[in-house]
Amino acid sequence: MEGFKSFLFFLISSLLLGFALVIFVLVWVLHYSDGLAWDGGNAEFNWHPVLIITGFVFIEGIAIIVYRLPWTWKCSKLLMKFIHAGLHLTAAILVIVAMVAVFDFHNAKHIPNMYSLHSWVGLVVVILFMLQLVVSIVVFLIPITPVSVRAALMPVHVYGGLLLYGGVIGSALMGITEKLIFSLKTPPYSNLPPQAIFVNTLGILIVVFGGLILWIVTRPGWKRPPEPTVKEQSPYRETSGSPPPEYSKTDKSDVELNSEAARKRNLNLDEAGQRSTM
Amino acid sequence: MEGFKSFLFFLISSLLLGFALVIFVLVWVLHYSDGLAWDGGNAEFNWHPVLIITGFVFIEGIAIIVYRLPWTWKCSKLLMKFIHAGLHLTAAILVIVAMVAVFDFHNAKHIPNMYSLHSWVGLVVVILFMLQLVVSIVVFLIPITPVSVRAALMPVHVYGGLLLYGGVIGSALMGITEKLIFSLKTPPYSNLPPQAIFVNTLGILIVVFGGLILWIVTRPGWKRPPEPTVKEQSPYRETSGSPPPEYSKTDKSDVELNSEAARKRNLNLDEAGQRSTM
Repeated sequence: MEGFKSFLFFLISSLLLGFALVIFVLVWVLHYSDGLAWDGGNAEFNWHPVLIITGFVFIEGIAIIVYRLPWTWKCSKLLMKFIHAGLHLTAAILVIVAMVAVFDFHNAKHIPNMYSLHSWVGLVVVILFMLQLVVSIVVFLIPITPVSVRAALMPVHVYGGLLLYGGVIGSALMGITEKLIFSLKTPPYSNLPPQAIFVNTLGILIVVFGGLILWIVTRPGWKRPPEPTVKEQSPYRETSGSPPPEYSKTDKSDVELNSEAARKRNLNLDEAGQRSTM
Repeated sequence: MEGFKSFLFFLISSLLLGFALVIFVLVWVLHYSDGLAWDGGNAEFNWHPVLIITGFVFIEGIAIIVYRLPWTWKCSKLLMKFIHAGLHLTAAILVIVAMVAVFDFHNAKHIPNMYSLHSWVGLVVVILFMLQLVVSIVVFLIPITPVSVRAALMPVHVYGGLLLYGGVIGSALMGITEKLIFSLKTPPYSNLPPQAIFVNTLGILIVVFGGLILWIVTRPGWKRPPEPTVKEQSPYRETSGSPPPEYSKTDKSDVELNSEAARKRNLNLDEAGQRSTM
């Protein structure tokens, strides 16, 4: 890998910062707010920022850069796709619980739902994220999808993923803004009490974390290298019924044998696969 | 240009949407709020969203995609750099006035400055934007900067520009959230009065506009083509003291004649220049 030390610096920084975000949001709700519970009160609302920051900011950020980890380049592409999808799915589950928490809290407290810009942007982001997840599983994981469809949709997948991640961060910043205005009364937000300074700092750190993820995912030298084409692969693949150990290291879904057309399709698919890593 | 019709669709959509943003913010402050004035009151504050959305969202968005316009590909790179920098500079001036308006309004009304996450993220974005503007003028416009420095800084310039643009949009969304919470009292924001629906829609349109700009600037087929190298250029360049009309169509700052080393440096510089268009 080109610039491995620099990659390592950015990766470790983003991991440390990601964990810091989770610790910050826990300190916010456990120390400055009413803790965590499922009681229709503030403590139930508090699951919302905890799960959004853990799932939609931290885990989702790692899902975006997971193809870039050079230690995974020996793993099959299919395995990496499952890990990528699995992280997104984990984020999706946490986000659904986070949404239930806030709607349940609003209903219990007779606070109207879906009036703020935070809720509008947030809901659009969640719906599009779920749509992206389902479409991507159908298109990129289920091997029946034609290569041409995969290749055509890959740029949209990558662009959509990054745009949605920006939307997540924007929504989180609006959510923090709202919550501090509504919850800080004596002293108010404008007096900048310790909770305000602490949670504003969390907001700044979320932006820095997003910036690190964007840097890592847009460096061309840190891309996962192209998959080997059929011609470059071990002859065992074409001759042996029982594959050698190396066989399991490649993405079987990307490999079709015994035809030149299939080889060309594989090349396209590899390109599509590469674009998935930006 | 590859996919010209698609480019045209996205360009026209983003221009129409950009104008719509300006009209929306004007309707907000002129119809729903207290208009525009410089009187220390709400009408002075109103310059803040008007100038931020006009300068930092719309003009800045156009500045980001200006190298992509195929009609400009016959213009010299230097001219395009001046237009790119000029649009950024225009945005910077509007943003400074927008900042003065809000500080002046706060001071007149004895509202504390710089307590909200909106103000923290916003100020960081403005400071880094000004820094990026000054450094970029020194590095990419003043021809004394070594090519190696330009080439090394170009990826940071592109990344920084897009990250800051994301920061602008995030700050704008927080600003809208704050303003609607503070200004809507009877009926409150949570009752979703017409102003809330209208300004929430403005917030959604800002996100869509940012998404269009990101799509246009990240399509590889819509990049400005590489500058011709010295060897490919007209022989007039090396023989004639008075250049023919075509001479003015190339970026003189990128051209050094009479040495192979200079030619290689020009190649690097062209690459650096290309990266400036993503």
